[in-house]
Amino acid sequence: MNTKEVAKAFTALLAKNEHEAASQKFWSDDVVSLEDMPGDMARLEGRKAVHGKGEWWYANNTVHEARVEGPYVHGNQFTVRFVMDVTPKGDKRRTMEEIALYTVSNGKIIEERFFYGQ
Amino acid sequence: MNTKEVAKAFTALLAKNEHEAASQKFWSDDVVSLEDMPGDMARLEGRKAVHGKGEWWYANNTVHEARVEGPYVHGNQFTVRFVMDVTPKGDKRRTMEEIALYTVSNGKIIEERFFYGQ
Repeated sequence: MNTKEVAKAFTALLAKNEHEAASQKFWSDDVVSLEDMPGDMARLEGRKAVHGKGEWWYANNTVHEARVEGPYVHGNQFTVRFVMDVTPKGDKRRTMEEIALYTVSNGKIIEERFFYGQ
Repeated sequence: MNTKEVAKAFTALLAKNEHEAASQKFWSDDVVSLEDMPGDMARLEGRKAVHGKGEWWYANNTVHEARVEGPYVHGNQFTVRFVMDVTPKGDKRRTMEEIALYTVSNGKIIEERFFYGQ
């Protein structure tokens, strides 16, 4: 699959809330996940570590609704915009927006990089 | 200005439709502009060349309405989403979506990279 095909299939799974299937199918085993924050979460490498971050996030946030927009493609990269109505554990309900930039190689996502709404 | 400050100020100008002021203030003189297409427009370098592309685009498209969403920041990069109600010259009115990824160095935008909605 080329980048455009990966982008469409991956985003379609996210839009159906099938994150598990999306990562199973499209993450490279040594996928790198980058967050714009200090500390251990800033850079995780490998399917297991990145999967663990996802599990942690879902355990600590209740998602009431999520909108997935995209994909938007350029070369071997694509972006997706997420708008989430979410309640972090012990905190108040809010709208979170972010854009993810994915890099594709040989039909697999080798990097995801998250940009936060300001 | 740091990336977050550049991102906010630049995006605020775009949202007011002040593209000229935004580029005057925030483009590096050797800004690089990347489009996901074959040919001469794929990579332009320098304020004059990139400005020329913008002039060409506005001369060949009538923008009825534009929505600017963002910015979304990660490190020295930020993204902005554009949704445009536009009529290309001699063609039919349509909605165009794209995401721009900007790279900042020393308070200036040194690269813009456009991702197209699929």
